[in-house]
Amino acid sequence: MSFAALDSALLGPLFATETMCAVFSDEARLAALLRTEAALARAQAAIGLVPPSLAPAIERIGPDAFDMDDLGERTAISGVPIIPFVKALQSKLPDDLEPFLHKGATTQDIADTGLMLQLREGLDLVAADIRVVLDALARLARRHRDTPCAGRTYGQHAAPITFGFKAAIWAAGIADLASALPYIRQRICVASLAGPVGTLTALGERGPEVLTGFAEELGLGAPSVSWHVRRARLVETGTWLATLLGALAKMAADVVHLSSTEVGEVAEPHIAGRGGSSAMPHKRNPVSSTVILAAHAAAKGHVITLLDAMAAQHERPAGLWHAEWHALPPLFGLASGALREAIAIATGLTVDAERMRSNLDLTRGLLFADAAASRLSERLGREAAHALVERAAERVRAKGISLGEALRAMTEFPDTTDLDAAFDLTSAIRSAGLWTSNALADLERLQASAEIGATSACP
Amino acid sequence: MSFAALDSALLGPLFATETMCAVFSDEARLAALLRTEAALARAQAAIGLVPPSLAPAIERIGPDAFDMDDLGERTAISGVPIIPFVKALQSKLPDDLEPFLHKGATTQDIADTGLMLQLREGLDLVAADIRVVLDALARLARRHRDTPCAGRTYGQHAAPITFGFKAAIWAAGIADLASALPYIRQRICVASLAGPVGTLTALGERGPEVLTGFAEELGLGAPSVSWHVRRARLVETGTWLATLLGALAKMAADVVHLSSTEVGEVAEPHIAGRGGSSAMPHKRNPVSSTVILAAHAAAKGHVITLLDAMAAQHERPAGLWHAEWHALPPLFGLASGALREAIAIATGLTVDAERMRSNLDLTRGLLFADAAASRLSERLGREAAHALVERAAERVRAKGISLGEALRAMTEFPDTTDLDAAFDLTSAIRSAGLWTSNALADLERLQASAEIGATSACP
Amino acid sequence: MSFAALDSALLGPLFATETMCAVFSDEARLAALLRTEAALARAQAAIGLVPPSLAPAIERIGPDAFDMDDLGERTAISGVPIIPFVKALQSKLPDDLEPFLHKGATTQDIADTGLMLQLREGLDLVAADIRVVLDALARLARRHRDTPCAGRTYGQHAAPITFGFKAAIWAAGIADLASALPYIRQRICVASLAGPVGTLTALGERGPEVLTGFAEELGLGAPSVSWHVRRARLVETGTWLATLLGALAKMAADVVHLSSTEVGEVAEPHIAGRGGSSAMPHKRNPVSSTVILAAHAAAKGHVITLLDAMAAQHERPAGLWHAEWHALPPLFGLASGALREAIAIATGLTVDAERMRSNLDLTRGLLFADAAASRLSERLGREAAHALVERAAERVRAKGISLGEALRAMTEFPDTTDLDAAFDLTSAIRSAGLWTSNALADLERLQASAEIGATSACP
Amino acid sequence: MSFAALDSALLGPLFATETMCAVFSDEARLAALLRTEAALARAQAAIGLVPPSLAPAIERIGPDAFDMDDLGERTAISGVPIIPFVKALQSKLPDDLEPFLHKGATTQDIADTGLMLQLREGLDLVAADIRVVLDALARLARRHRDTPCAGRTYGQHAAPITFGFKAAIWAAGIADLASALPYIRQRICVASLAGPVGTLTALGERGPEVLTGFAEELGLGAPSVSWHVRRARLVETGTWLATLLGALAKMAADVVHLSSTEVGEVAEPHIAGRGGSSAMPHKRNPVSSTVILAAHAAAKGHVITLLDAMAAQHERPAGLWHAEWHALPPLFGLASGALREAIAIATGLTVDAERMRSNLDLTRGLLFADAAASRLSERLGREAAHALVERAAERVRAKGISLGEALRAMTEFPDTTDLDAAFDLTSAIRSAGLWTSNALADLERLQASAEIGATSACP
Repeated sequence: MSFAALDSALLGPLFATETMCAVFSDEARLAALLRTEAALARAQAAIGLVPPSLAPAIERIGPDAFDMDDLGERTAISGVPIIPFVKALQSKLPDDLEPFLHKGATTQDIADTGLMLQLREGLDLVAADIRVVLDALARLARRHRDTPCAGRTYGQHAAPITFGFKAAIWAAGIADLASALPYIRQRICVASLAGPVGTLTALGERGPEVLTGFAEELGLGAPSVSWHVRRARLVETGTWLATLLGALAKMAADVVHLSSTEVGEVAEPHIAGRGGSSAMPHKRNPVSSTVILAAHAAAKGHVITLLDAMAAQHERPAGLWHAEWHALPPLFGLASGALREAIAIATGLTVDAERMRSNLDLTRGLLFADAAASRLSERLGREAAHALVERAAERVRAKGISLGEALRAMTEFPDTTDLDAAFDLTSAIRSAGLWTSNALADLERLQASAEIGATSACP
Repeated sequence: MSFAALDSALLGPLFATETMCAVFSDEARLAALLRTEAALARAQAAIGLVPPSLAPAIERIGPDAFDMDDLGERTAISGVPIIPFVKALQSKLPDDLEPFLHKGATTQDIADTGLMLQLREGLDLVAADIRVVLDALARLARRHRDTPCAGRTYGQHAAPITFGFKAAIWAAGIADLASALPYIRQRICVASLAGPVGTLTALGERGPEVLTGFAEELGLGAPSVSWHVRRARLVETGTWLATLLGALAKMAADVVHLSSTEVGEVAEPHIAGRGGSSAMPHKRNPVSSTVILAAHAAAKGHVITLLDAMAAQHERPAGLWHAEWHALPPLFGLASGALREAIAIATGLTVDAERMRSNLDLTRGLLFADAAASRLSERLGREAAHALVERAAERVRAKGISLGEALRAMTEFPDTTDLDAAFDLTSAIRSAGLWTSNALADLERLQASAEIGATSACP
Repeated sequence: MSFAALDSALLGPLFATETMCAVFSDEARLAALLRTEAALARAQAAIGLVPPSLAPAIERIGPDAFDMDDLGERTAISGVPIIPFVKALQSKLPDDLEPFLHKGATTQDIADTGLMLQLREGLDLVAADIRVVLDALARLARRHRDTPCAGRTYGQHAAPITFGFKAAIWAAGIADLASALPYIRQRICVASLAGPVGTLTALGERGPEVLTGFAEELGLGAPSVSWHVRRARLVETGTWLATLLGALAKMAADVVHLSSTEVGEVAEPHIAGRGGSSAMPHKRNPVSSTVILAAHAAAKGHVITLLDAMAAQHERPAGLWHAEWHALPPLFGLASGALREAIAIATGLTVDAERMRSNLDLTRGLLFADAAASRLSERLGREAAHALVERAAERVRAKGISLGEALRAMTEFPDTTDLDAAFDLTSAIRSAGLWTSNALADLERLQASAEIGATSACP
Repeated sequence: MSFAALDSALLGPLFATETMCAVFSDEARLAALLRTEAALARAQAAIGLVPPSLAPAIERIGPDAFDMDDLGERTAISGVPIIPFVKALQSKLPDDLEPFLHKGATTQDIADTGLMLQLREGLDLVAADIRVVLDALARLARRHRDTPCAGRTYGQHAAPITFGFKAAIWAAGIADLASALPYIRQRICVASLAGPVGTLTALGERGPEVLTGFAEELGLGAPSVSWHVRRARLVETGTWLATLLGALAKMAADVVHLSSTEVGEVAEPHIAGRGGSSAMPHKRNPVSSTVILAAHAAAKGHVITLLDAMAAQHERPAGLWHAEWHALPPLFGLASGALREAIAIATGLTVDAERMRSNLDLTRGLLFADAAASRLSERLGREAAHALVERAAERVRAKGISLGEALRAMTEFPDTTDLDAAFDLTSAIRSAGLWTSNALADLERLQASAEIGATSACP
């Protein structure tokens, strides 16, 4: 089966990593469910509710003990995979242990907790990749801290910056998400054990105790009350991933333009066979950016599904909980591939400083219009200076002369003005460098806080 | 791999049908690509551009001749699956034929045309299921044309209708989409052959001729100009599927409420083992409706991805074309499962006419408030009559008396009014029946037009 | 109030036209409601159900007769604007006519029918603008049918096309939507008259007759059965607008890149004061494209709301009908502004054919790699030719020589090949011209069918 | 103008509060821009960059000094409202001060910072309302801590809970969002001052100093580097609001069902004239829930627009920044109305404990099936006990007997089992109470942390 490109043998490798695939495989799904049932048994055994031998008995059973296709068929009948799973698991347990399995729990407890275990693993992979991207971008920013290039707004040359500044902005955009990681991890790392309607009645007063033990067994937090039908944590996680893809897409959008033929300032790292065309032998398409931009476009809609699922009626809704299953794992898949490609860009981008320099000259000084107007405004007033430069700019475009020439030729030009300094890159480079350093310092603090890329040790 | 629930061995069978799975399997993907290359060869051979033996040579090669994992790995490098596919296919052809393969085409031509073949098959499955749903709902509507039940607005009893009328509205909602099927089919059934930048230069003046022949070979239409970067047809198809899921979700939302414990007017058909709970042995959850509502919630976001893809820059975008691959096949998967469950509901719904009747009495005549006010307004004026019944309704709620009693007890009540007729179900049943028949006649015309469920014979 | 940028006195004029504003003003809203009630009265008078003087009495009352703020406050209490509107209207009618107002109708009938009248007007404006855009783009395409420029894929030069071809593709993308206009118009032009629960019981057997007369009064179609809770037509209309914005966004995305400093092949028409910057006096930002791209990004989400609204429970839902009110009018607003700017681009775009020509030379022949490989493949076989040109392209990039030089310098080069023809633009121009003409002919047929831009005369 | 229902004089009052309207009016917009320019002047004066009299001069000018329509027309030309605003402001300043206005800043700095001031005000309103909702729900939960009612899953009775538990879950769902408030507030409370391309070159080394002073003047935080094109904070804020609406929608979805005619366990507080119908005088529609559910449906799509805007190319994008303007303010508008209605529900909901009690008996003991199976499984094993109760449940449904009777009549029934305790509500009430208290304690901690509802004092 492969409705989803992520799951296709043909297309999937382009869009997701194998390690992330492994986290969300059906085998991993079953393993997480088994681990959840075992943890429940262990927590209940600790306070004498079930025999101590139950947990080890569950743990001796692996995902491969199950007939996946048979489970799938039974899921299609029962409506929830946990029902056939629990039945199949029961049949594999000794008769004397079977009555104690799944005690007090409901399907959603096992499914939700199992999913959290998978999401936590997925998040660890994402976090580790983010750390690598940020490190590489920091290096790139440092290296090109003083490499001048055009700043562009609305697709037009605006004023000079440095390429290091641009890389620092990429990093800062991703760091925005990285700084939310501890929060997201804490929201994901929560067990569910609330029984059929959220009150865990079957366990009575021992409920909170069992929940705590159960959560501890799995290294998860224990909620103060059931989250069966308060699903904000899933929206937050999904949106966090989609926003991360947005931050990566910002970089990719820049790279696609910077590597376009006319601009030619950067090139994605060359890998033999990459970015070719079946028809055009010369093509070097920016494949990494393509994957990232596709992931961003494909991710957004999943957030809608998660937002939908908030309005869960009563103690379990008919449809909205099931809808979540369609949305969260694909977001992790898309993030894995996009991060892999972002790492490729951040570590291997070819930067053509010379081309950046020559592109700066394309507009014959217009890039410095802001600086020139700023200087002139001290003499002429802000509005008049702005208007003067505006008219001069028109002559630059019309006559192919430089902005300096155009300005000096204008009658209103106050001769005494020291215009040359306006056309000097030094101040632009200095300012870009200053803010680049600022951003990098921030980034270092963030990375030092060890919150990103650390293996989960929650709660 | 199974990021998507649709592709999971464990969850997939709940959400998609096996037949639809087969349409979008990787093998089917390759088969469609092979069929596309063969059709191109055949069309070019017909006018002497390539040897006549090329097409048969391609047709002798099946999807199983390819190493899918190897293709997948190469796709991850090249960025597009067609590049490794064409290379692998070349290596399987005799040396003298190889130069003629894929002549004039670009990757997108093969990928898009192959996808259209898959979508057409998917659409045929959807269309056939729609016909079955509509037939079953028409029967249901006819059978219960005169079965009175409460009409409900904002969750409240409003005025009487019949259950047949409700079923007719379900059918009419689905028929809205069915009536657009011929249009959607025509939009999907279009070949792509435009070469690297859309102008098919390699084929020169023979381009249109080859395109026409190629399209005819595949039973597709030929566009007047490249649709590489005009993607409305994909948005239309995806939205049509999401809207179809919306029409099914309307029925499912009704069924969930009507089968809720307090209402109890209908029940989804009982299948052993269906709708149970791992904790609650008595549960009969409406699984079919659950699947449909989940599909609706999961589908909507994919429309966003397709709308995104419209803004494709220049002759092929970096990312947006790839994004479409994530969105369209899942929509077909979701539709397949939702339609299967809609058929189950439409053909097997248990209707409890007695319960409907007794629920009608719950509000002690308030259901007839509109009718009563209507009669009274002839005497009192519209506003006064409305106000009178409003006050009477408050007494009904407060004192537990009937609306008739309450009205007659009010001093403003114009004694001469024939109120009894207002509380008679006859006129409500008659009106509901009238419109039910109207809707069914419309439906018959639609079904007779043979446009739904017919195997595609486009263009 | 101005939560929405569209409704802001400060921002609105950038994003929507005044004529479209007028269609959706509160006054227009009231006028549509009044017209709807009058049409109902007229249709009922025609068969003797209400006095003939009712309709003229309603028609004598204009929107300005209502205290809008008071109505708004009462809407906040009642939950639906029609309730205070009907009450206020009643109070303005002679006592003897008042009982006959709104006979048989429910709030949703009046609100939905009134909305359809507004949407039809909105659609007429959109259609007229589409015709203007298409005409202008056809002229642009014809004028530059043979103006060579680079075809670009993934942001990279791919192979030559003509600028006229590109304009023809823009037009064809918009024509995709234009060709669906008659369908959409027919879906919008439908009256609603179904009473409280969809069965129009108060009118009994005369229901269909009144519905037909009512619809005819308004120039609308009569549905075969209530569409209170089958809302596909609104999804279709909303998606059609969002897709239209996608087609315009494709053009805008191209224009932004083509007008970027390094490419410089086109410029949006210059208007004094347009595209400036508060800081940078030289800026000429592509404001028209900015408005279009913003509209595309802002429109997509509204489609989600409309898809949501499909799952309307029972005879009127609590929330989903109200949600539609937030989504449809803004889509018309966004379309109006985007079309205005698209017209500006299509009619006034500055095209720099010289710059296009010089950009073609940037890659020293790589643009012709496809053509060269095609020629070589006749000698070397497809794969070997492709590989040879791929290696030559690397030398072009590395050594700054031309592709012709690079190829001829390679030992595998079959000397006898007539390579020069591959580097000739003639065939690319000819092919581009051929397809441009094809697209334009299609467009002419569409425009001649008079379906676009015609004032609605439905059904 | 009123494309948006939120901005309509007729519809707006239903969907948004007047206080929130005031925050986003055009006057408030201008006031925020003026405050921003004044703060910039003040910060620059403090270090001698501009005359000290500039800030007071700006502060003397109010929003009413501007011709809003004229500004709007100029915005439509310039593409950004800040350009005509700055020009108009300049013209109102003494000649000697004018050159110093807006020094170093770019349009986006002023627009973004001004917007943050509005968002902060909007957030304060939202936060205050959340506190009220949470307080009211805590009271409701406490009051009904021991009021038994049916727990429902998939629309079906599942097992008993208490109504207080349900209210506690509503509160906990909203508290999930409330607990993120400090984070969101911190993300919103950030100034922007980065100049044309993000490097604030015009201010050179004094840039950071000016930024800090500027931010402090406004009570905002200073970013380490420009956030012109890293927009995560806006996505986070928008999603937070949409998720909050999701948490409110969960409550509203429950209320709509609980107040439906057949269930009748709660009623929205009665306000004269509320929830009526133009046709049905008896209607008491749940208008508050309707408004909330509509807000949820209308909000989700705006998140898509904000996610789109992440991929901002280079130093300022053409379109995506503008798109944000369409999305964020409406989310605040929708939240304001939904919170107002949530307060109405939370403070005024009519709870019918008797009806809850009688509904519990509807299924003749099936609600206790889980408890019964649990007891039986100690004797029979889990699977056999589950199966036994499943069969007994069928007899309950078929024969109208109670579950107790049905079980005792079955041959497999182990006679010695103390079944009566299973059918006792005590343990369900006790468990529900336990978790309710747990949730309330959590809520108290949250409220005590004073993070919700406090007036912003960031950074």
